[in-house]
Amino acid sequence: MSFDRLIKKIIDTNNPTVVGLDPLIDYVPDFIKNKYFMKSDFTLEAASEAIFEFNKAIIDNIYDIVPAIKPQAAYYEMLGWRGVMVMEKTIRYAQSKGMFVMTDGKRNDIGATMTAYATAHLGCTQIGGNMIEAFGADALTVNGYLGTDGIAPLLEICEKKDKGIFVLVKTSNKSSGELQDQKIDGTPVYAVMGDMCEKWGSEQIGEYGYSSVGAVVGATYPEQLTELRKRLPHTLFLVPGYGAQGGGAEGLKGAFDKNGLGAIVNSSRAVMCAYKKEGCDEKDFAGAARREVIRMRDDINSVINK
Amino acid sequence: MSFDRLIKKIIDTNNPTVVGLDPLIDYVPDFIKNKYFMKSDFTLEAASEAIFEFNKAIIDNIYDIVPAIKPQAAYYEMLGWRGVMVMEKTIRYAQSKGMFVMTDGKRNDIGATMTAYATAHLGCTQIGGNMIEAFGADALTVNGYLGTDGIAPLLEICEKKDKGIFVLVKTSNKSSGELQDQKIDGTPVYAVMGDMCEKWGSEQIGEYGYSSVGAVVGATYPEQLTELRKRLPHTLFLVPGYGAQGGGAEGLKGAFDKNGLGAIVNSSRAVMCAYKKEGCDEKDFAGAARREVIRMRDDINSVINK
Repeated sequence: MSFDRLIKKIIDTNNPTVVGLDPLIDYVPDFIKNKYFMKSDFTLEAASEAIFEFNKAIIDNIYDIVPAIKPQAAYYEMLGWRGVMVMEKTIRYAQSKGMFVMTDGKRNDIGATMTAYATAHLGCTQIGGNMIEAFGADALTVNGYLGTDGIAPLLEICEKKDKGIFVLVKTSNKSSGELQDQKIDGTPVYAVMGDMCEKWGSEQIGEYGYSSVGAVVGATYPEQLTELRKRLPHTLFLVPGYGAQGGGAEGLKGAFDKNGLGAIVNSSRAVMCAYKKEGCDEKDFAGAARREVIRMRDDINSVINK
Repeated sequence: MSFDRLIKKIIDTNNPTVVGLDPLIDYVPDFIKNKYFMKSDFTLEAASEAIFEFNKAIIDNIYDIVPAIKPQAAYYEMLGWRGVMVMEKTIRYAQSKGMFVMTDGKRNDIGATMTAYATAHLGCTQIGGNMIEAFGADALTVNGYLGTDGIAPLLEICEKKDKGIFVLVKTSNKSSGELQDQKIDGTPVYAVMGDMCEKWGSEQIGEYGYSSVGAVVGATYPEQLTELRKRLPHTLFLVPGYGAQGGGAEGLKGAFDKNGLGAIVNSSRAVMCAYKKEGCDEKDFAGAARREVIRMRDDINSVINK
């Protein structure tokens, strides 16, 4: 339908940020790791269980002040199916605490296969007469390189089940310009992709003016953020690259509209590893995560017009 | 290092094809489905187990004449973590029969996260002092929209562990042209992406002249196949769209080089559902798959110069 559910949560918490849960096992404090490694040795199973305990504690300490989490599928897949199981458990746990969950999978394929991805991550799989949510996230990141028929199956599920997608437009990495900054009839590829997002979302615009089709635009490219905010008035931005990837709050200003809406900024490692940076007792890792989340919220709110 | 391992298998079997294992539960014959649904009701678990039995029987009936399988991650993710477990089991089972396995995941992300995907699907995850293969495929399909630093982590694993990647260049779907056919300084996006593949693979070229970086080019666009074969002399093509998506063998001619190498053609549904098309006893589904695989091999070989 639109991103209204997420935007309402952003307004309620006065916090336009999302915590990325991209847990490498090295991020987990020793006192948790050791417990599981002693139980099941150095296995994917032990690592997965340790990561779930880590994720849960972080969620418990931020759910009242942060609107959303963004699990990054790659880090769960690194642990095989056991890791993927923990991704599902993390999604459900965060939702049980009232959080909005966007799975960062950057999925993409042709129509029939994209239907399978859309079903997997946002919809219900039919088995006999049963309709079962496989992962049941609220939103999914996707890659639009394949064009409209790789996106259409997602739009259908977004409408039916009130979900959303974020399409890669201008990514935060150094070499994103190799293709994305190239010009097609004078327009950069990222803007062509952005225009497609506006078109894809045009029939699912909510009460805040944003559709169910958002865009990923990196904090590391403040000029393009500002340019795209003007160009894509109905497209909500998911903004990675704040903190660990080097982007600061000042550069984020252009991502927001005149009402202080229009973007949600991600931070992953800076939150998960806040206890390492703080140098506090590792048993206070989730408390450190909460302190970092508050610092980030205040930092970003300080540059937004409200 | 290169795609030599795969090319050797293609030569040994005289068969430039790969069977896509993209199993919807509807493709599985009733006699298998019923067995598992009776045991565990209409659950994701029962569906996953039924699909594994289905996959195994197909592999058992084709491994001596087909060089490779290509499990499509989306269809396994539809069944949640239990489906992803079956994907892993399918990969290992096919490898135990000597097959080359390319996971079709079209993964993509920025450098650090792409390292996690590369590790998950092609490499080893380190847990304490243990190095554990999470999925352990031989190759992975990826999307290059993010540019070089989204590909670099894969190149490292390709070199170290003798693996390969296929980058989306010109996809087989109808709307692939929306972005891919747009021109950058007179060159279509798909050719720009193709040129990047040549560059990425330039230091990992094997004895047949092909690097570890392949390209996905759809059978549904025979002109571009021919054009790209000439343009990208070191890039092995993975060609979807034969059969179920409408491409025929005649249009595939241009995908192959003067030695009859340079491409591997995928067929998924036409093989998995051959028993439905044939109208044979459903208990002979794997026999029907073998007959279709032979028909396809002979059809494609008939248009290749050797």
